[in-house]
Formats: sequence, C-alpha cells, structure tokens
Amino acid sequence: MPPISSSSPPPSVPFSSLAALRAACTALPGVDTSVQQGIAVREATLTKPAGSLGRLEELTLWLGGWQKRIHPRLEAVQVLIFAGNHGVVQQGVSPWPQDVTAQMVQNFEQGGAAINQLARTAQATLRVVPVQNLTPTADFTTAPAMTEAAFLEAVRTGYEAVPQECDLLCLGEMGIGNTTAAAAMAAGLFGGHGADWAGRGTGLDAPGVAHKALVIETALAHHAAQMLPSEKTTGMPASGAGGPTGFDPLEVARRLGGYELAALLGATLAARHVGIPVLLDGFVCTAAVAPLAQLAAGGLDHTRLSHCSAEAGHARLAEKLALAPLLDLGLRLGEASGAALAVPLLRAAVACHTGMATFAQAAVSGRT
Amino acid sequence: MPPISSSSPPPSVPFSSLAALRAACTALPGVDTSVQQGIAVREATLTKPAGSLGRLEELTLWLGGWQKRIHPRLEAVQVLIFAGNHGVVQQGVSPWPQDVTAQMVQNFEQGGAAINQLARTAQATLRVVPVQNLTPTADFTTAPAMTEAAFLEAVRTGYEAVPQECDLLCLGEMGIGNTTAAAAMAAGLFGGHGADWAGRGTGLDAPGVAHKALVIETALAHHAAQMLPSEKTTGMPASGAGGPTGFDPLEVARRLGGYELAALLGATLAARHVGIPVLLDGFVCTAAVAPLAQLAAGGLDHTRLSHCSAEAGHARLAEKLALAPLLDLGLRLGEASGAALAVPLLRAAVACHTGMATFAQAAVSGRT
Repeated sequence: MPPISSSSPPPSVPFSSLAALRAACTALPGVDTSVQQGIAVREATLTKPAGSLGRLEELTLWLGGWQKRIHPRLEAVQVLIFAGNHGVVQQGVSPWPQDVTAQMVQNFEQGGAAINQLARTAQATLRVVPVQNLTPTADFTTAPAMTEAAFLEAVRTGYEAVPQECDLLCLGEMGIGNTTAAAAMAAGLFGGHGADWAGRGTGLDAPGVAHKALVIETALAHHAAQMLPSEKTTGMPASGAGGPTGFDPLEVARRLGGYELAALLGATLAARHVGIPVLLDGFVCTAAVAPLAQLAAGGLDHTRLSHCSAEAGHARLAEKLALAPLLDLGLRLGEASGAALAVPLLRAAVACHTGMATFAQAAVSGRT
Repeated sequence: MPPISSSSPPPSVPFSSLAALRAACTALPGVDTSVQQGIAVREATLTKPAGSLGRLEELTLWLGGWQKRIHPRLEAVQVLIFAGNHGVVQQGVSPWPQDVTAQMVQNFEQGGAAINQLARTAQATLRVVPVQNLTPTADFTTAPAMTEAAFLEAVRTGYEAVPQECDLLCLGEMGIGNTTAAAAMAAGLFGGHGADWAGRGTGLDAPGVAHKALVIETALAHHAAQMLPSEKTTGMPASGAGGPTGFDPLEVARRLGGYELAALLGATLAARHVGIPVLLDGFVCTAAVAPLAQLAAGGLDHTRLSHCSAEAGHARLAEKLALAPLLDLGLRLGEASGAALAVPLLRAAVACHTGMATFAQAAVSGRT
C-alpha cells in the first residue's frame, strides 16, 4: 500500500526548539480542492434528492479532500491513545488514584477497556502510547508542567506515533487529572476563569469541581506573565502569536498541559503534514490540539470533532474552535471512545458515495 | 435460532375491524425490568467511571430489556422499508413525479440506493415491501386517504412483514408525497396548522412549502368533524381516545396517512407484541407510528428515534412524543437511512457491555 501522499513529506523531526515546532505548525499543506470538486460532481448524480444525506456528504468531501482520493478509503483506520500522568493531582483534583493511569494502560493492552470494544466495532486497530513512561509532569500550580525539552520530546513522541499508511486517525487519551490540564489550557487559550472550564471529570462532586476551578485559577495567575509571547521564548515577535488571551499557544501547552496532551498535538500536526484526516475525541483531546488553530488559520481543517462530551467545558471549547460535533451522546470517558464511535458514520458516508447508483444507471426520473 | 420471546405470541391477525386493531394497540407487553436490573448490576462493575458511556449505557438497558437478554444480541438486524403512493400528489405537493416511488423500489432491489449501502455497513438485511402494489391512496383533500378495509389491510401487511426471529428492526419508507401525509397526520394528532408541520420534503422551494401547508389545511378542514371519536366508528366511547386534538388516532391515520405509513404502524405494533426493539427513522416514520403513543401510555417505549431529520416538522414531532434522537446529521432522505446509520451505536453499546473487563478482572483501583 503506498503512502497516502508522497508529495508532502513530513518536516524533519525531532523539533529542536519551540521556534522550530512553531514553524512546523504554521507551514501547513491545504486540502485538495480539485479532488473535492470531483467528489461533488459525482455526488450530484446519485439517486437521492440533492443534499439529502446531510453531513454525510460533507464528510465524504472532507475525507477525500485530505486523502486526495475521489473515492475516499477507510481500510487502515488507526486509534491512537496517549497516556500521561499529572503533577497537579497532588492538589486533589481527581477522585481516582494516579495508579489508575498505568492500570488502564494495561487494561488497554489486555483488551478489557471500552476503547478495545469500540475499536473492534469500528474495524480499527488500536495502539496505546504511554508518554514519558507515565512520569508525572510538574504540579503546574507552582511550576511549568514541562521543561521545554520534555515538552518537545512529548510532541515528538506523538508526531512519530502516526503511521504513514493510514486512512483515518482517531485520537484519544488517558491520564488521571488531565481534565484539569485541559481546562487550564482552555482558559489560557480562550480566556475566562477556572470555573468556566472546570467540569466533573471522572466524577467529582460540586465541591470538588469548585476546588478544581480554584486550582486552575492559581495556575493561571502563576503563569500569566510568562505566557505572553516574546522574541526570546518563541522566536516570533509579540504580535505574531496568540488567541484571545494574547498568550503564546505553545507556552500555554507547555506550562498548563501535559505529556499526553503534547503528544496529541504532535500527532495531529503529523497527520496534517502527511494528509491523514483526524477524528478528535472529547474535551482533553480538543484542548490539546487547540493551539494548532491559534497558530495557523485552518490549522484544524483536517480534523473533525467526533462528539460533544458531557464534560462541562467541551461544548464551549468546540464553539470557540468552530468545530461541530458529529455525535452528542453524553459520553465522558476519553480513551478515543467518541472518535471510534464516529468511524461508522464515515464508513457509511463513503459507502453511499462509492456504492450508490446514479439516476442514469438506475433509470430513476429527475425532478419535474 | 429460537424466537426472541416465546412467551408473548402476537395477537391474531388479520385485524377484522378498527376496534380489533385498537384493542391490539392498547394491550401491550412491557419491558423486562428484572433483566434490566441484571444489566445495571454488570454495568456498574466495568472499568470506567459510572455513567461515562452516556447514552450507550441506556441503549444497552433498552435493548436487553425488550429482548429479555442480559447480554443483548444484534445478530439478526432487519431493515424494513415500506413503499406507497399518494393521491395527494395531484395537488402538486412534490417536485418529483409519482413514478419515482416504483423506480426507487427497483433501485432498492438492485442495490443502488443509499439504504443498500447503509444496511450493508450496518451488517443488516434489507427488505422492501411495496404496499398495495403502489396503488395511490385517494386524494385526502377531498376523501379519506384509505377505506377502512384498505387501511386495515395495509396495517396487516406491516404487521406480517416483521420476522419473528429478529434482534432489532430498522423501519423506513419511500413514497413520493408522503411528507405531506406525515405533516397532515402530525397536525391531526398534535394540533397546529399546516404551516407548523409542512417542510421542504424532497426539495420544495418556499412557495412550494406554502402551497403544501395550504393543502394540509384543506385536508384538516375536510376531515375534522369525522375524526372525532364516536362509539360507532371506533368501538370506544368518545372520552377514551385521542391526543391533544381529541381526534381518534386511527381515524387520523386512515384519513390523512397513507399505505406505507399504515404498514409502519402495523410493523411497530407487531414488534412490540413479540419483543423486538425498533429504531425509527425520520419524519414520515415518526408520524406514522405516533398513534401508538396516543392509544397507550408507553406505546412507543420499545422504540428509539434514530435521528432528527432536517425536515422542518421532525424536531417538533419528536418533542411532542418525548423521543430523543440519537443522531442529528441533517439527513432528509427517508428509506430507513437514519435508522441504519444508528445501528453501529447499538453494536458499540452491546460490545462495551459484553466485552469490557470488570475492575476486579483488570485489577484497576476504584475511586479514592
């Protein structure tokens, strides 16, 4: 099987600096509009009222445009989960012990988790990558979650985990405490207070959520000044980076994120460079890749949001990123569960586009 | 393979009268709550935060409760499409010629339609039933759409089309003009004007929708007095039938519906009698089965609404029936397309419930 796109070799990794990573995040290939025109021409001939398959028709255009195939293909579908641990759990932000991250990685490897069943149902292969051997980040209420070197290393882990021969990538994560990191990143990227982004995670009660919001506030106050862009830290002038908060998106990811979130960013970047469409999962996954949208216009155009999570901040985050979720089923599990669940929708879209008869073939009359 | 439920044989068909049909619609078996308790017990032991699979957990309960199986099964999934023609197309309510109904039936049989691809993707078998040989109903602006005998015959066609050995039934329809019948039925059952329920159907422009609304108003005015229940026509006292409008639901279906809609009602009734869960499709399918909800409390409890259609009245109708759609993808095709598209969600739910490890099996720690 040839690589999806031999015309867009990925830029050299490892990224040696934040500036090199930033450059890779801003020089992005676009969608193939001529392939999309070809897809639209065929779609209009199929035996159904124009547009009556709704978002399925848009999904076919999206898949084919990034795969550069008039007949999009979903043979090699890869579910990729990154796992990581978080120093901020010392602040009591999760009702589960940190050991659960490693235990769930083992559960993934033994086939017992939800994502194992969902990946099988989606006819997808599953790979789990424990980032930095599950060593926790620093507690970001008092220090950057990651050193620059460790952050870049985690991004690189994600980047290099993406298989070159892949028709669709489904991304997800596992990490006790990581909805706190995701909420902190969302606040750092889009503004608002901790309470605007903190949710129940794996099952906090209301006082637990209030405490989590305060922990996020503490972290934001600690890092705010240093997240403003400067030529020294970012390699770019202050005016060239940042979203509504004006903070440097990569510094937000390094200081408030986590290893598995950095890997998700790296994987999504790699997918863009080689032309692989990506299904994003829930709140943590969306927050992790949000810097790509702030670093380059259309930086997430090769992704679709698989679902809207029940986690409080997800709908808001999706709206900020103008990502329209495909499913809304009250999931709040992570593990790429929502992404895997959306794969059959894409298979259905491709099956219709590829297999339907045209009006001429089926001798069906047109509109009067 | 044994029948799903040997304990609930279907009542005798053919229905000899509206009164006999009404009796069959009101004597309905319920869900097996002891099976559901068993499902809930297992669900709580699986390696995920409680409730984190959202609506998938509810779907497992629903499937198992109606199948009477602690481990619900989706081996025999049947997509059943009823096709019919409508005299009201004489009023110019569709931009497509009536011949398209028969042409699309042929397209279904030859494998060229969207539902053929979607059923294959869902690993479901597909059967298409042309009701009354696609003879059109009467134009319901001037006469009842169906005689009592023809209505009962169409209900019976649907009732008898349901296979006894079936784990899940996906219902859909094809019929040029049938969104007009569905909108008229919705108005007859839930009140409001034609304009509240008329939509674009297969592609009307705004003046076309306005004309369609007027056609529905004409029909409502023509039949209103005769849809009020009486002992003579319904076999029940006036106080015993009807929804918000006070009209007899079966008279609404006979006078304003259509052959394929009557068959959908019959199939949904049969599924209830033998314990087969049903996925409903879009606006026409939902309107067709709505009388069951008015004839008996919980009359649609064995169904789930697969999706919210782009057809204008569907969201409103779903709300009236308290049916929460599983998908919302802007589909407006019919043909059971949305129902088939939702099947993988049920497969995923069952796969998680059946295949996941428990906390004990996987040695994953519980909450602190």
